[in-house]
Amino acid sequence: MTESSEPDSSASRDWLTTSIGHSTPDSITVRGRDLASEVMGRMSFTDLAFLLASGRTPSEAEATLFNAVLVSLADHGLTPTALAARLTYTGAPEAMQGAVAAGLLGGGSVFLGPVEDTARFLNGILETFPQDELPDDTALESAAADAVRRTLDAGLRIPGLGHPIHRETDPRTPRFFELAGEGGQVGPNLRLLKFVAEAQQKATGKALPINGAGAAGAVLADLGFPPPLTRGFALLARTAGLIGHLAEEMEHPIGLRLYKEVDARASRNAEPEAP
Amino acid sequence: MTESSEPDSSASRDWLTTSIGHSTPDSITVRGRDLASEVMGRMSFTDLAFLLASGRTPSEAEATLFNAVLVSLADHGLTPTALAARLTYTGAPEAMQGAVAAGLLGGGSVFLGPVEDTARFLNGILETFPQDELPDDTALESAAADAVRRTLDAGLRIPGLGHPIHRETDPRTPRFFELAGEGGQVGPNLRLLKFVAEAQQKATGKALPINGAGAAGAVLADLGFPPPLTRGFALLARTAGLIGHLAEEMEHPIGLRLYKEVDARASRNAEPEAP
Amino acid sequence: MTESSEPDSSASRDWLTTSIGHSTPDSITVRGRDLASEVMGRMSFTDLAFLLASGRTPSEAEATLFNAVLVSLADHGLTPTALAARLTYTGAPEAMQGAVAAGLLGGGSVFLGPVEDTARFLNGILETFPQDELPDDTALESAAADAVRRTLDAGLRIPGLGHPIHRETDPRTPRFFELAGEGGQVGPNLRLLKFVAEAQQKATGKALPINGAGAAGAVLADLGFPPPLTRGFALLARTAGLIGHLAEEMEHPIGLRLYKEVDARASRNAEPEAP
Amino acid sequence: MTESSEPDSSASRDWLTTSIGHSTPDSITVRGRDLASEVMGRMSFTDLAFLLASGRTPSEAEATLFNAVLVSLADHGLTPTALAARLTYTGAPEAMQGAVAAGLLGGGSVFLGPVEDTARFLNGILETFPQDELPDDTALESAAADAVRRTLDAGLRIPGLGHPIHRETDPRTPRFFELAGEGGQVGPNLRLLKFVAEAQQKATGKALPINGAGAAGAVLADLGFPPPLTRGFALLARTAGLIGHLAEEMEHPIGLRLYKEVDARASRNAEPEAP
Repeated sequence: MTESSEPDSSASRDWLTTSIGHSTPDSITVRGRDLASEVMGRMSFTDLAFLLASGRTPSEAEATLFNAVLVSLADHGLTPTALAARLTYTGAPEAMQGAVAAGLLGGGSVFLGPVEDTARFLNGILETFPQDELPDDTALESAAADAVRRTLDAGLRIPGLGHPIHRETDPRTPRFFELAGEGGQVGPNLRLLKFVAEAQQKATGKALPINGAGAAGAVLADLGFPPPLTRGFALLARTAGLIGHLAEEMEHPIGLRLYKEVDARASRNAEPEAP
Repeated sequence: MTESSEPDSSASRDWLTTSIGHSTPDSITVRGRDLASEVMGRMSFTDLAFLLASGRTPSEAEATLFNAVLVSLADHGLTPTALAARLTYTGAPEAMQGAVAAGLLGGGSVFLGPVEDTARFLNGILETFPQDELPDDTALESAAADAVRRTLDAGLRIPGLGHPIHRETDPRTPRFFELAGEGGQVGPNLRLLKFVAEAQQKATGKALPINGAGAAGAVLADLGFPPPLTRGFALLARTAGLIGHLAEEMEHPIGLRLYKEVDARASRNAEPEAP
Repeated sequence: MTESSEPDSSASRDWLTTSIGHSTPDSITVRGRDLASEVMGRMSFTDLAFLLASGRTPSEAEATLFNAVLVSLADHGLTPTALAARLTYTGAPEAMQGAVAAGLLGGGSVFLGPVEDTARFLNGILETFPQDELPDDTALESAAADAVRRTLDAGLRIPGLGHPIHRETDPRTPRFFELAGEGGQVGPNLRLLKFVAEAQQKATGKALPINGAGAAGAVLADLGFPPPLTRGFALLARTAGLIGHLAEEMEHPIGLRLYKEVDARASRNAEPEAP
Repeated sequence: MTESSEPDSSASRDWLTTSIGHSTPDSITVRGRDLASEVMGRMSFTDLAFLLASGRTPSEAEATLFNAVLVSLADHGLTPTALAARLTYTGAPEAMQGAVAAGLLGGGSVFLGPVEDTARFLNGILETFPQDELPDDTALESAAADAVRRTLDAGLRIPGLGHPIHRETDPRTPRFFELAGEGGQVGPNLRLLKFVAEAQQKATGKALPINGAGAAGAVLADLGFPPPLTRGFALLARTAGLIGHLAEEMEHPIGLRLYKEVDARASRNAEPEAP
């Protein structure tokens, strides 16, 4: 990386580029759009998030679904991630970025995994179809039944199904199908997920609802995002929830009191004879 | 968690509450709204972010400005934070939440600080006015001149002014004033910031532009957010940018090559006689 | 935290305990030892780390090996993790915990994985032996050959072998065997790893050295630590390296200059006609 | 970073160096020492941590104190940081580096700050003495009294004094003075801290004990480390504690149960009429 004026060796410089954004003294460009004149006041933040990750802006129907995905994943109450964020804020209120980061770090296989796992599972099934053919319902139904049988035979769980609280219907799921239908966007992943749920019920005799995270993963896949990016968007959604929790923590803190109760209780268990 | 065996005392349970969200078997509620019927498909993700942090939904004019703030802070090319995220992804591609978190952790005093510092600085000036009076321009101008003089006399920098690349005008700033004006939202913080820039120029003879981060901080303050939350929203914005960078890293990786070049160059400097 | 209003039930309180440590007004206890009188000045920090994770103090021979593991994993120059830490420090020097955390977050499958993967791989082989029998060399050699053949047939890599820089011998490996031998501690994992390397060479005709991370994983396994904890100790070791890098960054910073070079280079690639 | 073989421009390469460590095909060097032959089996991990951060190895007396500092800061029971780590592990057990990082991110101003704040406070006082003169006790006593008076007059707290649990004596403090005395290492920072405590008591009439974190900060300062590095070592110490907590979490998990209790309790407070 020489700063002086030797000739550009284009072959070896190629790799150090980014299309995400750059600045000149007079302009800021993001994914090829001028920030001040083409984005600010013209594009929503959500549309920009879509554009930054995919390189294209969403249609109106796509944007409705994309926003629905993000709002559905933003918050779930005092989850381990929200608690970790609030506890971290308690220790380092001067560095909010640490509290947000700590909250996101729990967004792994257990709580956010279902979004990506479902996208991956459906993707694996759809990959078996020829690229240029949109599979019809009969084909999807059959492929779903096969995949479910193989997964259950391997002793594995089917991603996207079941929920510890919403045992009959996850309220987000019907809404996803409704919105997708309104926008003419019930894509192959979402349709396939329905067949997967039906095949699971037939195979086990037990009905498990499609959970919101799984439906969100299917919708993101139908919007064209590869599985790892579905987890990225779950993290973006969760960031908004965490900032809400931290806003609340600033006004009605629970972190310090939670710590004191836990610590006192654990101490009592360690030194039972102490007062 | 009662510490002794007294009966459940609502007084000791009060503090463990959250208004951010909770779930029942049939519903998910965020800030009092039913997620499936009132939020999904009806509220944008950005509106929900506003609601989660403030407890109220934004008006249309407020939403335009809020989106403009977020898009203006989402990305700035291969910043230290984007680089840290991409390098972390290189080492742990299976845990995207780590890469996003690492990218956010650099969002501290140097790069994201200006948003919060400006909000804090302006807040400090506006606090001197009686609560029930909206200060007029003359009062703001005078208060700005005082604050600038005191700050410069103390040897401190004025937050919100100057930029290493946009030395004459930061392209985001005029656009903020334009959008605020269109929505009838040029609030006291933004007006005050203008007077601060003018007072700075009078006092030093050197014109420093209002930078985009400072303008964003002023806009967020006028939307009613306290200074620490302005940093929270800068982090939310940056998360979208980081996901864009990670999407690009998956397709056009630079992390590993950057590491190899840096490592080779440092090694050459350590063992000059090695080939 | 009683779930309903039943009287304090010790059964529901049992789970909230920790043996790691607790405090009373007069004492601090860690894993059952009094900190001030039994640990400070009597136990090294490394011995305490061993004790905290395992619940027992190491013998002298075990401590020698454990220290050797940690020093071998502490630093590897300007790795992506060290770079991420230094770049994060550049953005948030007031929050060093963020820089350390960012450096650790890259410690995933690519760079730290080999420690845990090797421990896991060896563990999987040793599990096939009856618990009460220490397998002799003949048995280990045979089991190694089987495992290598199965792994290669499945198209997978053998963990613990090979290194991009130390192509013939990783200098840490012979030293591990030497130290283990001196302390009479060449346990089954380390012996097995040797047979794995030999079996790999026989099977492919190509010699790959046992890498230091793999040897470290084997040593940690022989010290009784389960595979996930081997990654934990790699992280502890790396923390010391990161603090060294941050100490250097404070005196001889490279973060800001690296960012500026990368940013300038990427900008030149984006706007080739700009000066 | 030259892409081809043009001449080395030493001016532009100078800054990209590190003295922390580097590798060649046959050797690994850390701070100038050959890892395999001079460090493994010869230096403890703690000595290496000292060396990496300072560039020199500690004497035996210094090592005793340094180890005492680290063990004293390693763990404090189920602190917010330990809880955040365990909760994060609950969500992402496959990425232990996230759990460790989350635990460290709470190590900010509230819990780890005292180590650095005390070092900084004492440093500020000692800086007023001429560099080549070791201040005697009379001078230190007088300077302590001045600093205490100025700090109290400014309405600020004196760092290093007081503890919410150890209200009379923090058990770590006498042990630090004892160990320092045994090694002939009662340096100016530690002596000054004693005078600060005495001056505080005279000025307010209320005795506050020197807390362990403050004493640790003073000891680290006397070992020659600048204040920011004292926080770095507190983080290193805490990493060992966090790994202990995560080891326990793998065997006796509390994260999921804690989350369920908190969530249930908050839900009851949100929907009081629900069963």
